[in-house]
Amino acid sequence: MHPFRSDIDFQSGAMSRGVLRTRRVSDMLDYFADKGAAREAAEDRDPLVYQYTTIDLPEESGHVLHGMTTIYPGLVGREYYMTKGHYHRERAAGEVYLCLSGLGKLVMEREDGETAVLDMEPGTACYVPPYWAHRACNVGEKPLVFFASFPGHAGHDYGTVEQYGFANRVENHGGKTVVIDPMPEGRGL
Amino acid sequence: MHPFRSDIDFQSGAMSRGVLRTRRVSDMLDYFADKGAAREAAEDRDPLVYQYTTIDLPEESGHVLHGMTTIYPGLVGREYYMTKGHYHRERAAGEVYLCLSGLGKLVMEREDGETAVLDMEPGTACYVPPYWAHRACNVGEKPLVFFASFPGHAGHDYGTVEQYGFANRVENHGGKTVVIDPMPEGRGL
Repeated sequence: MHPFRSDIDFQSGAMSRGVLRTRRVSDMLDYFADKGAAREAAEDRDPLVYQYTTIDLPEESGHVLHGMTTIYPGLVGREYYMTKGHYHRERAAGEVYLCLSGLGKLVMEREDGETAVLDMEPGTACYVPPYWAHRACNVGEKPLVFFASFPGHAGHDYGTVEQYGFANRVENHGGKTVVIDPMPEGRGL
Repeated sequence: MHPFRSDIDFQSGAMSRGVLRTRRVSDMLDYFADKGAAREAAEDRDPLVYQYTTIDLPEESGHVLHGMTTIYPGLVGREYYMTKGHYHRERAAGEVYLCLSGLGKLVMEREDGETAVLDMEPGTACYVPPYWAHRACNVGEKPLVFFASFPGHAGHDYGTVEQYGFANRVENHGGKTVVIDPMPEGRGL
């Protein structure tokens, strides 16, 4: 394979090559806590929640998959716009996020019930170690834009999060950002 | 391992955690084409050519090693300040560079003699596929700052470049940046 470059706009997250995918509220009805608010938004304008671009590379160990994610500002009920979130199919694969614009929370958890939250702002490099599911939430007023890089063999497992959700949810309570855990007793999957 | 973040200054390349290493001209006497100019600079002020910070992570497949590099502006003879450059010890491991500030050239080559050069400027994500040695050169007037990410098991082989050099050199000829190949017939190692 020959070396190549792609050009990124740090404010919008646009990338000059790669495969662009979009997620609207209607694609995420099972992910938001307030199902009624989600259904209503989907039936009304069905707004774009996030989009991401991934460079098309072989999904093999040794390759470095990379791409851009843009999460728009907004709420579904009290919950901030967020990515679906996923484990890697290969659980022993990590990921690094470099935040380029906006404000976010990176919510993570392990199958043994451990949880973690990191703040994202321009210049933060957040490391998601192997075994941690990860989801980003936009808690600011402009798009949250970040660069992500992960091993070629990582793969994606969205199903586990779709079925069990994340322990921590990031919500706006009267203008304040709060991370709430609806299952404070902890849980393992 | 628990998730963590580090904070990066995009203008200077400073990183709030990790291991900082510096390379002065005296560390690179065998790398610059003009050995006399290199010796002279090393004996005079011995300027800093570049520095890099790498987050301390296990060097294992699945981890995503990452860090920052800052190459200062300057010349040794006609040759721009640059990194030593390296192959990965595990040849089948790639790397991605995200340029955050400054102007550069990313010079690459394979052991079969293939060469490639990519321009680096703020917002360019350059992909170094498996099997390509890589070196960055600062061709601008401010520090060249970039984020790099590569597989945990990649390892570094500096010896091959130290012994054979790079086919392409990036020089300033009367104010113009030129990429010259002193062995235009091509070569394999």
